[in-house]
Amino acid sequence: MAKISDRVRGLTAGMGDGWGVYHRARALKAQGVAITDLTIGEHDIRTDPAILDAMQASARGGHTGYAALAGTGDLRDAIAARVTERTGMRTTRENVLVTPGGQAALFSALMGVMDPGAEVALPDPYYATYPGTVRAAGGVPVPVPTRPEDGFQPRAEALSAAIGDRSAALMVNSPNNPTGAVYGAETMDGIAEVAQRHDLWLISDEVYDTQLWSGGHLSARALPGMADRTLVVGSMSKSHAMTGSRIGWLVGPPAMIADLVVLATHTTYGVAGFVQDAALHALRLGPEFEARIAAPFRRRRAACLELLGQAARIRAHPSAGAMYLMLDIRATGLSATAFAERLLDERRIAVMPGESFGQAAAGHVRVALTLPDDALLNAFDSMLSFAEEIMA
Amino acid sequence: MAKISDRVRGLTAGMGDGWGVYHRARALKAQGVAITDLTIGEHDIRTDPAILDAMQASARGGHTGYAALAGTGDLRDAIAARVTERTGMRTTRENVLVTPGGQAALFSALMGVMDPGAEVALPDPYYATYPGTVRAAGGVPVPVPTRPEDGFQPRAEALSAAIGDRSAALMVNSPNNPTGAVYGAETMDGIAEVAQRHDLWLISDEVYDTQLWSGGHLSARALPGMADRTLVVGSMSKSHAMTGSRIGWLVGPPAMIADLVVLATHTTYGVAGFVQDAALHALRLGPEFEARIAAPFRRRRAACLELLGQAARIRAHPSAGAMYLMLDIRATGLSATAFAERLLDERRIAVMPGESFGQAAAGHVRVALTLPDDALLNAFDSMLSFAEEIMA
Repeated sequence: MAKISDRVRGLTAGMGDGWGVYHRARALKAQGVAITDLTIGEHDIRTDPAILDAMQASARGGHTGYAALAGTGDLRDAIAARVTERTGMRTTRENVLVTPGGQAALFSALMGVMDPGAEVALPDPYYATYPGTVRAAGGVPVPVPTRPEDGFQPRAEALSAAIGDRSAALMVNSPNNPTGAVYGAETMDGIAEVAQRHDLWLISDEVYDTQLWSGGHLSARALPGMADRTLVVGSMSKSHAMTGSRIGWLVGPPAMIADLVVLATHTTYGVAGFVQDAALHALRLGPEFEARIAAPFRRRRAACLELLGQAARIRAHPSAGAMYLMLDIRATGLSATAFAERLLDERRIAVMPGESFGQAAAGHVRVALTLPDDALLNAFDSMLSFAEEIMA
Repeated sequence: MAKISDRVRGLTAGMGDGWGVYHRARALKAQGVAITDLTIGEHDIRTDPAILDAMQASARGGHTGYAALAGTGDLRDAIAARVTERTGMRTTRENVLVTPGGQAALFSALMGVMDPGAEVALPDPYYATYPGTVRAAGGVPVPVPTRPEDGFQPRAEALSAAIGDRSAALMVNSPNNPTGAVYGAETMDGIAEVAQRHDLWLISDEVYDTQLWSGGHLSARALPGMADRTLVVGSMSKSHAMTGSRIGWLVGPPAMIADLVVLATHTTYGVAGFVQDAALHALRLGPEFEARIAAPFRRRRAACLELLGQAARIRAHPSAGAMYLMLDIRATGLSATAFAERLLDERRIAVMPGESFGQAAAGHVRVALTLPDDALLNAFDSMLSFAEEIMA
């Protein structure tokens, strides 16, 4: 066979060992073994039928040809209006590029902010695709460890220390997957200060911005001096239970958006018009609908934290957002990977070892709150008794 | 504003001047001016309702979550079976990656066959996105001129002369957009020989493989020694009138496909499951359906060629495939851009100057056969009288 490119071969170089559990759980499920799967960041409900009917009405109505490459005007307007309302920052369709999902928005943003060989600093723990996405775009990911005792909020001095001559951007995610951290004003000010002092772009992944359990969501783009150096990643996946529809967006300076439309011409050639019309319908359902999609996670988080409040061996970081709980299992004496491997073997429960998301999450496991309440609480019960057992 | 990357800024560097006509035609249409638009490679019909109903049945049936990143097993099997049947090459799902459209497949293929700085040789004229797609993937496009008197078939010696130390791939397209050329056995053997002699990948864009008006379609992957160095780009857009659904594929060696699944994890995160189910339904409609979608272009091509047979100033290349006619307008004494600009001004007809597709198509215009027969033939009539008029 002819040679496969080095960059594609090396995309997941150094990827955390934690993924062994994930793949083993899938293999067991494929064999018919009953696994309680708490690894997946996906709702236990399907996309609302009203949204799917809007998609079908659009398709049957004739919206089956090439759609505008930047996104339809109506959808760009609706996204801009939502951003304006949520952040107070005046935003228009010229600030918006519709993409085939949040991951495509991340990749597009990275292609736009740096040339090959540039560095991108990102707080660790991070969403699992981040380092590979930077590499796919030809860059070098530079993880910046955060600390459990800081609630996994990145410190400005740690970010600043990671910046060098080849740095092009910071990439942050609040509310955060996997930690559930929501960056407060001090953290955001620090990020903005570092970005401006070093003339960096900020890529701000805000796909969990409707899943807030305490405090408010701050969008870095709204901070003074940041609108011209920030690209915000958004998505319908988490907010509207539309993971499979693959639709998201970037919000940023019009000149950058215009160039990324040209990039999209060469990488994806746009997003299906009927999917865009479905997203438009979904956005028009308004904040009440978004709150309804988020409600199960709010309820389950509270119930799980209450359960954990009585536990000695497993402590939860009091996540402030997103559909996960990050559990500190260091008191068990096991590594997170060993804990997760044994939990899978002995209790048939699959969770993600923190090492899947970088070095800074060692000693922790990420639990997705994506099963019905009873099943989830039973799994937490089992996990707690497991932790007691291995300590005995 | 922070700095936009050089690569994104430079994607369309040196892009043909012909695009001025295209954009002006769009602006006129937006102003309400009636334009006969023969610039677009898109059917004048919509996607078949049965296909859309299959999509809706899938979505309402619950296929709204993340789909398998390589594509659903059923769709990969169906694509593999179609390729096996059409080419005689045994093909399985391990050879297939489902992508969000043919353009995404092209980009993915380029990411896989080369590292930044590598060169990709491609026959000129070429589909307009090719050079920018190579650049988006960090490569250097090397156009290889073909000649009208060769029917725009690339000569092996010309391809070979374009190969250097940094060459990683050839990228070809048969049936060809914009020329309508279908590469014959001699051309294909030459391409295969050059690829093997220089240890290159071959990216073979075959999205028009159901639009064949004379001769047969040869897939380079089926030639001896080529399966391990060929990536075939396919799409539902042209064959099934599903341009707006954004679904296509790559067929290639399993090891490369496996690596490109990892790439897809970082660039698109897969394709909507309900769109994949729609494509599966469409493929199962079989060759008769594909022939029905192609039939209008076959009929219009024949009618237009008959009309042109009586003309002195405009000569058609007898295209063997695809939904276009390439017209040689050199006898008018105008450049193709000047011809197209005046045709737009004086007759309100929009066609693509050959320069839009590279230097080798100078003196030609591309006419898309994508209007109903009467409107199309009227436009051809008007174009012919226009050509006579400017010669008078």
